[in-house]
Amino acid sequence: MGSQRADQSTIRRANLALVLGHLRAHGTRSRARIATGTGLNKATVSSLVAELLARGLAREGAIQRAGSVGRPGQAVELDGRGVWGLGVELSVDYVAVLALDLRDEVRWDARVALDVPAQVPERTLDVAAGLVRAALDAAARADAVAVGVTVVLPGLVSSTSGVLAVAPNLGWRGTATVEELAQRLGEAHLPIAVENDANLSALAEHALGPEAGTPDLVCLTGDVGVGAGIVVGGRLVRGSEGFAGEVGHMCLDPHGEVCGCGRRGCWETLVGLRALLRAAGLPEDASDEPRRDLRARVAEVRARAEAGDEVACAALADVGTALGRGASLIVNLVNPRVVVLGGYFAGLGDWLLPPMLAELDARVIAPQAGGVRVVCSRLGFRSAIRGGARVALERVLLDPTRVGCHDQQRQPASGQTVR
Amino acid sequence: MGSQRADQSTIRRANLALVLGHLRAHGTRSRARIATGTGLNKATVSSLVAELLARGLAREGAIQRAGSVGRPGQAVELDGRGVWGLGVELSVDYVAVLALDLRDEVRWDARVALDVPAQVPERTLDVAAGLVRAALDAAARADAVAVGVTVVLPGLVSSTSGVLAVAPNLGWRGTATVEELAQRLGEAHLPIAVENDANLSALAEHALGPEAGTPDLVCLTGDVGVGAGIVVGGRLVRGSEGFAGEVGHMCLDPHGEVCGCGRRGCWETLVGLRALLRAAGLPEDASDEPRRDLRARVAEVRARAEAGDEVACAALADVGTALGRGASLIVNLVNPRVVVLGGYFAGLGDWLLPPMLAELDARVIAPQAGGVRVVCSRLGFRSAIRGGARVALERVLLDPTRVGCHDQQRQPASGQTVR
Repeated sequence: MGSQRADQSTIRRANLALVLGHLRAHGTRSRARIATGTGLNKATVSSLVAELLARGLAREGAIQRAGSVGRPGQAVELDGRGVWGLGVELSVDYVAVLALDLRDEVRWDARVALDVPAQVPERTLDVAAGLVRAALDAAARADAVAVGVTVVLPGLVSSTSGVLAVAPNLGWRGTATVEELAQRLGEAHLPIAVENDANLSALAEHALGPEAGTPDLVCLTGDVGVGAGIVVGGRLVRGSEGFAGEVGHMCLDPHGEVCGCGRRGCWETLVGLRALLRAAGLPEDASDEPRRDLRARVAEVRARAEAGDEVACAALADVGTALGRGASLIVNLVNPRVVVLGGYFAGLGDWLLPPMLAELDARVIAPQAGGVRVVCSRLGFRSAIRGGARVALERVLLDPTRVGCHDQQRQPASGQTVR
Repeated sequence: MGSQRADQSTIRRANLALVLGHLRAHGTRSRARIATGTGLNKATVSSLVAELLARGLAREGAIQRAGSVGRPGQAVELDGRGVWGLGVELSVDYVAVLALDLRDEVRWDARVALDVPAQVPERTLDVAAGLVRAALDAAARADAVAVGVTVVLPGLVSSTSGVLAVAPNLGWRGTATVEELAQRLGEAHLPIAVENDANLSALAEHALGPEAGTPDLVCLTGDVGVGAGIVVGGRLVRGSEGFAGEVGHMCLDPHGEVCGCGRRGCWETLVGLRALLRAAGLPEDASDEPRRDLRARVAEVRARAEAGDEVACAALADVGTALGRGASLIVNLVNPRVVVLGGYFAGLGDWLLPPMLAELDARVIAPQAGGVRVVCSRLGFRSAIRGGARVALERVLLDPTRVGCHDQQRQPASGQTVR
C-alpha cells in the first residue's frame, strides 16, 4: 500500500507540473482548454488548478467564452510572483545577483564591481553570499520565496560533481563553489548549482530571446574569454562531463599568437575582449585599481567606430573575420539554424556581422552556410545570469509541491516545501 | 466514433512497437517479464505477443521458470529473420548493397568495384539498382520481405528534402538520388531514404559497436573524405538542415595546403586517405583503370609500417597528429565520452592512436581531455552500410503492422502492409 500511495503522489506531482508548464507555455487558458491541451480529464484539471492557486503558482484570469454555446469559464494564468530563482554571476570584474520570478520577470538585481582574479576565491564568495542574502531579504519583504541559486562561472564546470574544474580568466581551479557558498548562506538551506556561463546564455536565448524555441541554436558569448552554448534538438549539449562548448581555446592557427593558456592561436587571442581592446588602441591600464569596467571600454570602442576612427574600425573588422573563422568550425559541425552573438559581441553587430557572414559563406561547406542566420542577443551581458535564475526555477516547474500553500486550509501533498 | 477507433489502432501499434523494441533490447523474455518491463498488463502483452508471432517478428523461445513458485512460462524472443532492411553504399570506388534482418544479422551482401567519379550518376545508380534487385530476389527466395532502402552517400544530404546537395569526392551535385533510384526499382515500391555516411556509421557504432549505448559518442570516418557522425544524449545530431558533422573541410591551418575544394588547410588535406597514401609513398597511379581498390593500398601501408618502413611510419605519425588536432576541436565542442575511429583509420590504430592521444591531451582544455576515450571501430568500412540497413528497418520497429501476417487466420489491424 505504501508504494501505491507513493505512486499516486508522484503522479499528482507530475500532473501539477504538466498543468503549470502548460500555463507557462500558453498563457491564460480556461480549465477546459487545459484539459484538451494536456489530455487530462476536466475534474482532475479542476483539482490540480485549485492546488496551483493555493500554492500561489497560478491565479484566476479574465472570464472567457469559448464559443456561442456553453457556460463561460473563468480562465487561469501563471502567477508565481512569489517564487524567485536566483542567478549569481562571478565575472572577471564584477559579482552580480539577479532574481527572476516564475513569469520570467526580473524582481531583484544588484552588481558589485570587483577585480575577481586579484582576490582569493573565498573573498569573492563572501561578496556573492552578501548579495544573495540581500536578495533573500528582498524576497522576504515581497512575501516571496527563493527556491534555488545557480552560480554562473566563466569556466569548466563538471556536471557530474558540480565542482569548478578551472576558470582560467578568474584564476580559479578546483574550487568547491557549491560547498563554499552553502557554508556562507548557512541557515538559508537553498539548493545551489553551478553552471558554465555560455551554457546558461544559450538556455536563456532558447527560452527568452528573440529566437526562443529554435531547436538548433548556438550562442557565442564574447567577454574576456569566449564561450559557446550549444542547443541541439531543443536540448542543451553538456557533453559526457559537462565540458561541451569550450571554444575559446580551439586552435585557429598553429602559427598564431601565444595565448594565456600557453597554447598557440587560440580563438580567444583573436576575438576575446582584450584582443579587441588592444587592437582598437584601448589596452588595459595596469594602474587601474580596481580594473576599469571592461564593458565601459567596449562602449568606447563603439563610440570611436561610430566617429569613423580607422583603428577602431579595422580592429572590429578583424574581430568579425576571426569570429566567422571560428564560427565556421562550429557551423560545419552542428549545422545550427541560428547563431546568437552574446556578451560584448551583441552591441557591436553593425561592425562584426558583415565580415563574419562573409567568412561563414566562404568556409562552411554546406550550401548557403547550411542555412544559418546570425543575430545579436537582446539579452546581452545579462543572458547568462538570467539563464541561471531560470534554471534555479526549474525544480518548481518539475515539482510544484516544492513551494508551500498560501492557503493554509489546503496542505501540500508532499512534505518537501521550501518553507 | 471514427477518431476513437483510429486512436485505438494507434495505441495498438505503439504497444506492438513497445513490445518489439523491448524484445530487441533485452533478448529472450517471458510474457510476465515483458509486462513488468513495459508497464503493460499481462492480458495485453499476451495479445500483442500473439500478433508479433503471427507477423513473424517474434518466436517462442525456451521454457523459463522465474523462481521456485508459479507456473513456468514459455519465453518469447525477437525473430524477424523474414524482415530485411537494405543499405546501398555509393563510394568513390565501389557500389555495395547489404541486407540486415531485424536481429542485426547480415543476410545478403554484394559489392561491385566502380570508378564512381568517372561515371555519370545515372550509370552508378543503374549499378546500384541492379544490386538492389538481386537482393530483392534473394529476399524472395528466403521468404523474406525487404522493408526499405537507405542510400549511403559520402556527401551533404539535406534531411528536409532527401536530395544530395553535394558529394565532392563523387563529383555529384544536386542529384535527386531517391527519385532516380525509385524509378529504376519501379514495381518494387520500396521506401527509399538517403543519408550521410558518417551519420550512419555513428548510428551503427551506437547500436552495434563495442561502445554501443554510449550516450555521447563521435564517430570519425576516414576515407578519401573525412566525416563525423555525432551522437549527443543518445541521439544523432543532424542539425537544422541535415548538414551536421561536416568536418572534412574544417580549416586547421590558414597557411596550409590547398584542398580539392579550393579552401586552404582543410582537415582532409592532412588525414584523408589520399594524403596518407601520398605521404607513405603510394600515390595514385593515373594509369589505374578502374582505380585500384583504395582499401588494398591501406593494407599495403600497414604492411610497410609493420616491416618498419620509415616513410610509412612517419606518414602514419603525421596523420595521427593531424587527427588529434582536428579531433580536439570536436572534443572541445561536444565533450564526447568516446571517439570511434572508423573507415581506414580503424585498421591503423596501432600507429594513429599514440600521436592522436598526445594531441588531444595537449589541445583539449578540459582536464584529461574531458574524459574522452578513443577506440577503433570493429565494424570498419562496413559501419555506414550497416547503419543504413538498420535505419531502413526502423519503420518496422516504429510500426510492426507494416509487415504482414504469416498466419492468414490473423489479419493485421492496419492496412499498411508492405506486401
